[in-house]
Amino acid sequence: MNTDPVQSKYLRAARGERLTVPPVWLMRQAGRYLPEYLAVRERYSFLDACRTPEVACELTLQPIRRFGFDAAILFSDILIPLAPMGAEIAFGEGQGPVIADPVRSAGQIEALRPVQPRESLAFVLEAIRQIRAELPAHVALIGFTGAPFTLAAYLVEGGKPDPFARLKGLMYGDRPAFRRLLDKLGGMAADYLEAMIEAGADAVQLFDTWAGILPAREFRAVNLPVLQKIFARVKALNVPATYYALAGMHLLEEIRETGCSVAGLDWRIPLSRARTVLGDRTALQGNLDPTVLLGPEAVIRAEARRIVDEGRGPGGHIFNLGHGILPVTPVSAVDLMLDEIRREEP
Amino acid sequence: MNTDPVQSKYLRAARGERLTVPPVWLMRQAGRYLPEYLAVRERYSFLDACRTPEVACELTLQPIRRFGFDAAILFSDILIPLAPMGAEIAFGEGQGPVIADPVRSAGQIEALRPVQPRESLAFVLEAIRQIRAELPAHVALIGFTGAPFTLAAYLVEGGKPDPFARLKGLMYGDRPAFRRLLDKLGGMAADYLEAMIEAGADAVQLFDTWAGILPAREFRAVNLPVLQKIFARVKALNVPATYYALAGMHLLEEIRETGCSVAGLDWRIPLSRARTVLGDRTALQGNLDPTVLLGPEAVIRAEARRIVDEGRGPGGHIFNLGHGILPVTPVSAVDLMLDEIRREEP
Repeated sequence: MNTDPVQSKYLRAARGERLTVPPVWLMRQAGRYLPEYLAVRERYSFLDACRTPEVACELTLQPIRRFGFDAAILFSDILIPLAPMGAEIAFGEGQGPVIADPVRSAGQIEALRPVQPRESLAFVLEAIRQIRAELPAHVALIGFTGAPFTLAAYLVEGGKPDPFARLKGLMYGDRPAFRRLLDKLGGMAADYLEAMIEAGADAVQLFDTWAGILPAREFRAVNLPVLQKIFARVKALNVPATYYALAGMHLLEEIRETGCSVAGLDWRIPLSRARTVLGDRTALQGNLDPTVLLGPEAVIRAEARRIVDEGRGPGGHIFNLGHGILPVTPVSAVDLMLDEIRREEP
Repeated sequence: MNTDPVQSKYLRAARGERLTVPPVWLMRQAGRYLPEYLAVRERYSFLDACRTPEVACELTLQPIRRFGFDAAILFSDILIPLAPMGAEIAFGEGQGPVIADPVRSAGQIEALRPVQPRESLAFVLEAIRQIRAELPAHVALIGFTGAPFTLAAYLVEGGKPDPFARLKGLMYGDRPAFRRLLDKLGGMAADYLEAMIEAGADAVQLFDTWAGILPAREFRAVNLPVLQKIFARVKALNVPATYYALAGMHLLEEIRETGCSVAGLDWRIPLSRARTVLGDRTALQGNLDPTVLLGPEAVIRAEARRIVDEGRGPGGHIFNLGHGILPVTPVSAVDLMLDEIRREEP
């Protein structure tokens, strides 16, 4: 069913509307904390689940059925579009992704292939079509990809990119090659998000998981121009776009300038403090500390309530966690959180 | 040789004096990037090197001899004082520290033993005496330990504490036990730093490597009071104390309130921006991105120059990296950096 922009609380808040009860969804809401997810994953590897539209559709819908979230996010991974560029990615259980042949030279950057998402990522677009057909009209569907800098981190490092010596070595050591890499990834990301929107995504999100390691000055110099191009292309389609940077408290001024519609915030600072820098033209998404859901009922309720209260004020607010929900989270903690958020629902 | 507080540029800057050329030392300046360090480490494990005063003394002095840094930092590890509390720590090569029996219950927290540093950490104090006897009078000697929250992170998680689910689960789930843990670690840290000062340390530094994962509100509620007690005890001895929090850009107001003499900053924001929050009563230490030292000469010089310039202004500045020097750093890059910093030396 097509989304109804009036019925969708997520879309209304993303466009800046203040709502008494904020819309809510959770990063990684389809995931290992859900028994129905684990049951499906017994039959499919992570990558197979991403690449099989019926399975991706089922996993996307599971948390909507159970919790009635206001938005569904495509079951996928931020690194999925790297494979058609030529990077072979493996996801081991219990460890991060591994890229067999890391991209570290100008020659390797040049050799990265352009992506035609309607061909090589057709399985994603088919999943989106199936999900959209199944979702109720008031639930928005979010498409996403990794942001260029974060994709570059995995490509250059070849795996979990701590301490980022190779990535930042390239950034400081061969600026033209590094810019070329971000440009290629930025073009791919914009094409990919456009194709997702065409397939039925109502909104998109860029995950810049590693942007927080950048000095504000470098973020402005190398990352900001690439992000501005992507968000300009998405905005031309009149679709809200969220930018999420983990540990990006020092980048709020730059984030405001990306042109994103919604700033996704981690748990480190109160929404009210972020609002003073971001202003009221950018909606806020967040920002419950995911580990609060490991605490007792009183703490879960108090923290959820605090964030609803801090989210009031000028501009829209979408309730979310500050980072992905942890696999050890009890399902009952999510129920408590939602009960607290929705208390004032008419 | 005893330090001469007038000759020591480090001590003068730490006490707030502006100098044309800032004093400089590097976090992890004794380490794997130095061939003379690697030669010693062929004969001693990391822990044996920490626990043998002659070896710790030699490793502490190596970078002073080679580079003429303005401060020497004791060769040791932030986790060293956990062993006498009852936590068995192992340092594997190429992986982080592992604690065999993590501390996760109120009962285990109660069972942590008080530490008499002059007895169970006598090897550290003997190293300090030996180092101080060998150091020239103008070079300050810095003693250090992990800050309580960071020590708690390792104790509770049992190893590299990402994603901190157990630590923060305890913090949100059993606040009294968590406070008791921080209090015990805080008392130990203050006793330990006092003993180091008595043995000859001219200054101390608390490393709060993981404080940056805390929401500002939680930092204020649980971490700040413990830090204030430690810094009050050190200040009573008239010795400058540095507080270093990695990724703590959202905590600057709280850091100002800790009572530290010097705020150690990572590379994420310019010193000038930190100064606007910290004011001129706290000296600044930092903040070159360690990966800059992997870049070409022009970048190293430009970034070092920028930081010297940004460090000018009211209050003291001690040049340092924003985090520990990386093992892959070329020794020649450190020479270039120092040459640039010391250009204006009379």
